[in-house]
Amino acid sequence: MEKTPRSFIREILKTTERSEVISFAGGLPNPSLFAVEALATAAQDVMADAGRAALQYSTTEGYLPLREFIAERYRQRLGLSVNPDEILITNGSQQCLDLIGKIFLNPGDPILIERPGYLGAIQAFSLYEPAFRPVPLLDDGPDIGYLKAMQEEAPARLFYGVPNAQNPSGITYSEEKRRAVAAALAGTGTIFVEDDAYGELRFDGRRLPPIRRYLDDATIITGSFSKIVTPGLRIGWVAAPGEILEQITVAKQASDLHSNTLAQRIIARYLETNDIDAHIERITRVYRAHRDLMIAAIEEEFPEGVRYTRPDGGMFLWVTLPEGCSTMRLLEIALQENVAFVPGRAFYVDGGGDTAMRLNFSNASEEGIVEGIRRLGTAISTFVR
Amino acid sequence: MEKTPRSFIREILKTTERSEVISFAGGLPNPSLFAVEALATAAQDVMADAGRAALQYSTTEGYLPLREFIAERYRQRLGLSVNPDEILITNGSQQCLDLIGKIFLNPGDPILIERPGYLGAIQAFSLYEPAFRPVPLLDDGPDIGYLKAMQEEAPARLFYGVPNAQNPSGITYSEEKRRAVAAALAGTGTIFVEDDAYGELRFDGRRLPPIRRYLDDATIITGSFSKIVTPGLRIGWVAAPGEILEQITVAKQASDLHSNTLAQRIIARYLETNDIDAHIERITRVYRAHRDLMIAAIEEEFPEGVRYTRPDGGMFLWVTLPEGCSTMRLLEIALQENVAFVPGRAFYVDGGGDTAMRLNFSNASEEGIVEGIRRLGTAISTFVR
Repeated sequence: MEKTPRSFIREILKTTERSEVISFAGGLPNPSLFAVEALATAAQDVMADAGRAALQYSTTEGYLPLREFIAERYRQRLGLSVNPDEILITNGSQQCLDLIGKIFLNPGDPILIERPGYLGAIQAFSLYEPAFRPVPLLDDGPDIGYLKAMQEEAPARLFYGVPNAQNPSGITYSEEKRRAVAAALAGTGTIFVEDDAYGELRFDGRRLPPIRRYLDDATIITGSFSKIVTPGLRIGWVAAPGEILEQITVAKQASDLHSNTLAQRIIARYLETNDIDAHIERITRVYRAHRDLMIAAIEEEFPEGVRYTRPDGGMFLWVTLPEGCSTMRLLEIALQENVAFVPGRAFYVDGGGDTAMRLNFSNASEEGIVEGIRRLGTAISTFVR
Repeated sequence: MEKTPRSFIREILKTTERSEVISFAGGLPNPSLFAVEALATAAQDVMADAGRAALQYSTTEGYLPLREFIAERYRQRLGLSVNPDEILITNGSQQCLDLIGKIFLNPGDPILIERPGYLGAIQAFSLYEPAFRPVPLLDDGPDIGYLKAMQEEAPARLFYGVPNAQNPSGITYSEEKRRAVAAALAGTGTIFVEDDAYGELRFDGRRLPPIRRYLDDATIITGSFSKIVTPGLRIGWVAAPGEILEQITVAKQASDLHSNTLAQRIIARYLETNDIDAHIERITRVYRAHRDLMIAAIEEEFPEGVRYTRPDGGMFLWVTLPEGCSTMRLLEIALQENVAFVPGRAFYVDGGGDTAMRLNFSNASEEGIVEGIRRLGTAISTFVR
């Protein structure tokens, strides 16, 4: 436990509870897009039709019709052949990381992560005290030469990555990089943990095949309804080869028996009776507009020499200030201006990211984005002239 | 992971999915007692009044009004002074055990458990590879001489116990034993983990003070709405001194960010708008009758020489057959007779319990109890004449 990093985000979020603060810090979906009425109807129907079953203990694996929906969607969207028996329902995809850490990691085991990497994964895996080996992210995915060199030194137990609209950088791996990652891991015994939280939130360009397509028996995919339906119900899943899934299931049972029965049934009912593709299209239209608006505002308000990614999906922009401009110090000034973000340093296990910051564009309103970036520009101007 | 015992119960439950099997194996509440309509109304009201908040990410600590309810109930029922800030909402109380294991246990750390002990706790803690030290349970609680001797050898990191209507034995610690356990642990650095899943389900006798009353700064209490409202929503909690709770909160965040927002609000609304004491009284009335019916059936159907506990609360009877009558073998015969239970061996980490079995009396109907005990009697008669 002592080695677990305290959550920057949790501490920052506390300071952003003041209503006057415009926050680009969290990773929250935009609540104006929640299908409140449709989900309320689904809840009512589940309680009316199967109330006693929805309120009772249920299986660790999760509600079968929901697992069938996920399997069918993998087949249709990604051409992946996943059996419902190879899917386990979890408390959001965050729990997948904990369960994977539990079954795979012993203290000191090498684990590859992206640099910068998802803070929640760093926190989840840290509890198992692995040796983190960060692989630099380039514009189109991991640095393959570096990855190969690391693997030659000693193959890692796991490689945790977010190939679609990565958190925090917004980067999407190119198809070539996906193949190259798979090739670098194939036969080494390293399992790729493919976090696909944002794959459905793709704004531009065609959908790319998951790495699992190239590394079938050594890939664990994690997924989530948090970004496309609701995060409050904490329903995610893990899809893994049978033998691995069996171990994950035993760990899940020991951890909390099973996921919320009612929530699983509400989401399954909602998916049966609503057009999820149309809903996702609504979300991506808004997020794409938010991204464009944030980039336009940055170009307007931020000084020369500031660089930023232009993500083709997801919820985050990654901004880099000129040399010497610490975003930790900037945060203090920004909070005085009532605007918040997460400093880059939170996403590095080995130091770094001092001049970077993660900006969330999904949660704020359009007015909030314009005004928040204006305030941030004011704060940055105290460093950069 | 390799050291984690496979779940007997999970395997047995699979065989009991056949509708012709009468199962005394699981630990399920009786679904006929679920307040389906009241919970459906609560769900509807939450979605109507606060749908967007109920569907959004929320704090790791959990929904404040629910934590306030729990704190106030501790004050009223047990005279315990617990601040809402010292309570964290979890995915059922099973998750508390995982989180406690995470922050307290390193491989080889000594942990005291009851003998027989709760299988779910054995599973949860096993993942952290501690050295289990089972303390024999007598009719009125742990063997204090044995406990003191163990503590003198080397104080344990934790003592996990279920003082009220213990799972699996049904035993409730006497008030004297509660004081004695606290006295044996005080000043040793050992934390008592007081699992109070069944404290509200008390049929006979007066309510006894929790061990926390005697060991305030070294006790963690876990609680659950599973037995008194619904298990399907997976809402439990842990109450611990501030410094411990802070560590548990960090571990919870890393494990799954937070518990289901909607479920927390549904339960809070249900508790605000319904008389939970009247509901608990309904449950205990039925379970008390089930216990009496099962004991009467046992006296009728089981041969001489069979011993059983007479629990004053909870959901389980503990039955011991004469020497040489293996309940593992009995289970095979019983399943042919379409009746199931959990063999005693599942509750011992060090061997033992060969002639014992756990019988659940909450879930089956009255007819099911009578018929199931008749079938079990038939199966037992193949051993005992």
